[in-house]
Amino acid sequence: AGPREVWKKGGRLLSVLLAVNVLLLACTLISGGAFNKVAVYDTDVFALLTAMMLLATLWILFYLLRTLRCPDAVPYRDAHAGPIWLRGGLVLFGICTLVMDVFKTGYYSSFFECQSAIKILHPLIQAMFVVVQTYFLWISAKDCIHVHLDLTRCGLMFTLTTNLAIWMAAVVDESVHQAHSYTSAHSNTSHTRLASDLERVGSPVGGDPCPCNTAVCQIFQQGYFYLYPFNIEYSLFASTMLYVMWKNVGRLLASTHDGHGHTPTQVSLFRETFFAGPVLGLMLFLVGLAVFITYEVQVSGEEGHTEQALVIYYSFNIVCLGLMTLVSLSGSVIYRFDRRAMDQHKNPTRTLDVALLMGAALGQYAISYYSIVAVVVGTPRNLLGGLNLAHALLMIAQHTFQNVFIIESLHRGPPGPEPPDNPPKEPCQSLTFANHDALHTLPTCPPTPSLASPSPSPADSQEAAAIILAPRSHWRRRCLKDISLFLLLCNVILWIMPAFGARPHFSNMVEVNFYGYSLWAAIVNICLPFGIFYRMHAVSSLLEVYVLS
Amino acid sequence: AGPREVWKKGGRLLSVLLAVNVLLLACTLISGGAFNKVAVYDTDVFALLTAMMLLATLWILFYLLRTLRCPDAVPYRDAHAGPIWLRGGLVLFGICTLVMDVFKTGYYSSFFECQSAIKILHPLIQAMFVVVQTYFLWISAKDCIHVHLDLTRCGLMFTLTTNLAIWMAAVVDESVHQAHSYTSAHSNTSHTRLASDLERVGSPVGGDPCPCNTAVCQIFQQGYFYLYPFNIEYSLFASTMLYVMWKNVGRLLASTHDGHGHTPTQVSLFRETFFAGPVLGLMLFLVGLAVFITYEVQVSGEEGHTEQALVIYYSFNIVCLGLMTLVSLSGSVIYRFDRRAMDQHKNPTRTLDVALLMGAALGQYAISYYSIVAVVVGTPRNLLGGLNLAHALLMIAQHTFQNVFIIESLHRGPPGPEPPDNPPKEPCQSLTFANHDALHTLPTCPPTPSLASPSPSPADSQEAAAIILAPRSHWRRRCLKDISLFLLLCNVILWIMPAFGARPHFSNMVEVNFYGYSLWAAIVNICLPFGIFYRMHAVSSLLEVYVLS
Repeated sequence: AGPREVWKKGGRLLSVLLAVNVLLLACTLISGGAFNKVAVYDTDVFALLTAMMLLATLWILFYLLRTLRCPDAVPYRDAHAGPIWLRGGLVLFGICTLVMDVFKTGYYSSFFECQSAIKILHPLIQAMFVVVQTYFLWISAKDCIHVHLDLTRCGLMFTLTTNLAIWMAAVVDESVHQAHSYTSAHSNTSHTRLASDLERVGSPVGGDPCPCNTAVCQIFQQGYFYLYPFNIEYSLFASTMLYVMWKNVGRLLASTHDGHGHTPTQVSLFRETFFAGPVLGLMLFLVGLAVFITYEVQVSGEEGHTEQALVIYYSFNIVCLGLMTLVSLSGSVIYRFDRRAMDQHKNPTRTLDVALLMGAALGQYAISYYSIVAVVVGTPRNLLGGLNLAHALLMIAQHTFQNVFIIESLHRGPPGPEPPDNPPKEPCQSLTFANHDALHTLPTCPPTPSLASPSPSPADSQEAAAIILAPRSHWRRRCLKDISLFLLLCNVILWIMPAFGARPHFSNMVEVNFYGYSLWAAIVNICLPFGIFYRMHAVSSLLEVYVLS
Repeated sequence: AGPREVWKKGGRLLSVLLAVNVLLLACTLISGGAFNKVAVYDTDVFALLTAMMLLATLWILFYLLRTLRCPDAVPYRDAHAGPIWLRGGLVLFGICTLVMDVFKTGYYSSFFECQSAIKILHPLIQAMFVVVQTYFLWISAKDCIHVHLDLTRCGLMFTLTTNLAIWMAAVVDESVHQAHSYTSAHSNTSHTRLASDLERVGSPVGGDPCPCNTAVCQIFQQGYFYLYPFNIEYSLFASTMLYVMWKNVGRLLASTHDGHGHTPTQVSLFRETFFAGPVLGLMLFLVGLAVFITYEVQVSGEEGHTEQALVIYYSFNIVCLGLMTLVSLSGSVIYRFDRRAMDQHKNPTRTLDVALLMGAALGQYAISYYSIVAVVVGTPRNLLGGLNLAHALLMIAQHTFQNVFIIESLHRGPPGPEPPDNPPKEPCQSLTFANHDALHTLPTCPPTPSLASPSPSPADSQEAAAIILAPRSHWRRRCLKDISLFLLLCNVILWIMPAFGARPHFSNMVEVNFYGYSLWAAIVNICLPFGIFYRMHAVSSLLEVYVLS
């Protein structure tokens, strides 16, 4: 079926148009449902999401049946797609989502009589969808399918859209919850622009909210809000894997074994480090956990302790971000002495990884720039303002240097001396080729002598280089593994803090006073989900860097 | 300098990071300056923009000097980049921007004593920047530069960022102006979240606003607001050309003449149509202009005429959009019978065009979906609601089908039978190659007999095909030229209406009542600039389709 695809972009166009339209419709309903004034109810949103999940499940079952019955449908498998840590993370987050669905069902069942049936149906359908989709992605993430191209593209895009809609709904629901707890804590009713669904004016039973008084119901409610971050990450993980599958539809690969898959030896997984990185990272992780718990306890307590909690929180973050910046920088410096070739092969998974890292960092960048302007332009200059400014500046630096480090790491070829099928001749060779190219087309350019000279006797000099490079590259590899593990652990703790509800953006009143509550809440609620996703995605990328280096 | 570029993405990373950071800083200040409550003044924004324009001008002068002194710096020129209609449009909009700068200088000079100097300096610096940049883009848009790669990338990205910042500032300024005229028309002070700079509380002279009483000052003020759309388009045109230049930095092309440049013969430029398209398009254009003027007069008059004006406005739009949808669809149908090969070559200009068409359409899509939800969920069902719903649905259909038509047109190769260096063998050949490829790698796939058979005697069958195809393709070409001219004229009138201030979104009270003024204003003010840019960009793409088909 391959040769029928005359124009790949045309085939993709249809599915992108479908996805854009469905996503915008979902976006409209979800954002409309978040606002109290707007007459869109959360039951409308639940109904839409349930219908989308049912359709996506049907398509997935159809896909699984078809590929089972017709083994020729998947002639190639992309070795880069769906690595084991991504699929493992998907299963982990999927299990947490299932627990969340149990809690949600329990919560809504507690006042069954005054809720519409869709609110109980929704988590049940979601549980089914999660099970089916996780199984589908586990076995099919690497597929390059070659039958029913257009239908498969549309199906994949629709499933992707469903995941993004679930993500949006979860993010909005969490923001509403945060805003509700903020306003109830500050008891300032003029700021109530977003309100929780329990307070909704137009609820089916009129003005009387359903009570959630029983202890079980309270536990269910608390529990499902703490499990939201996992549901959010599950949707995003599934989306990235579906996107790579969509890019791989109809793709022709040179051969099944293309030599760049580089499956790591399982034995060496937790050796080959100096132990400095993991130990330091683990220490920061534990300290961070303690700081986070202290912060949460002190902020939710009486007013007097808030400033103290903020000082501790910001101090820890500044130390952590500073160390991460320095470590990322030293990693980039190590790469300056690395002679491995850059991997120039086409790789949809990596391109997506890089785009997501750069794109998701924009969220935290934006928050930081708004903080900087508020502190610099705003008049009150105190300790908290200074800490906030340092925190925002370091946040920008850390994101920048970490992205540079990760992106450079992902583009390095597999380690030079070890695999016999990939000798370290690549750097010289590719440079010599480039030189020849340039000599053909650009006669004025003199050839670089130091790089062009090894080409007459490539075999000898390469072996010599391999012998010389072997011990050194081993030292570098250890360093890089230490660096990636340290950054990984730091990113985990910096993920936990915002994902489980730390919002210094609102406790520290600098920006709230400068921008006004509603504007600042809009900025934070739109940008922070991307910042949280960035941490999660950086963790998975750093795991890849750790394994590859 | 070519061979030194081992890893192109790494070179791009630095400039993208620079651009992202500068853009976010500008975005923060500009959005902060738009809100009355926030203590960021428009003088801060003007100062930032002036500094950016000065820096960008210096870099452009440095670039021009360097390429003048060293002719080897630009070994290749991209034939697709900077086509004549894009550069012509740039000069046209640049001249309008210069006129706007004159008006702005005149306006701010009218009350020189109570304004800070930066407000007069800003339009003067902008005029200089526009002149230098237009000259730079006119002569350098096709360059593939090969010296100082990193510096050039950073310079181009910084200039691009400057243009985007100017665009953002202009859009925000226009939205503030619109909101101000809306609130002063409805005299409902509770909605005044955005306010014009004259009403700003913290202005340098305290509570006393500078009067703009003289007739000259009034003319200047009115004039410069009507010239904003041209400034906005200028910035976006310059941005797209700079982006293509940035993509072309360090690019190696096969040869200077790559045969796909397809410069059209100037003689045939306004012939070869059935005249139906241009005539019908011109009629719609004139009717639309009359409807627009009627609408503006009636809406700005007393209340009673608003509904009548809206009915006329929506009726015209529905007819226009319906015709455009049908015509785009018939264009796509014609392509189903077209045997020209799809052009699969790498072409940054076209990739950007497609991305911009798809991305900019999102703005109008979003507005339409919000309208649909408001009309469908909202209770009052009257004539205006029905018209609004039909308008929103047709808007989505028209954007979708027009995008499909344009994107397919841009990917068609140059017309088959005429140019002797490009015989119509391409479709068969590329398919046969694909078949061979597939036969190598995919032994289970049977070759398509109808396509594989002409390969033994290619010369004979191709000549026969050329003879058979010649008259037919000529008939199709005429049709396609008609279609593109008709769509072009319709897009121009649909650009004029919103660009020069028609806002049925606010006059028709359906959405304002459903979402509340502030939410709906935020949606429209963020999305409409993209919708307006879409029209402009569609016009330039349709001109390209007209010339190429």
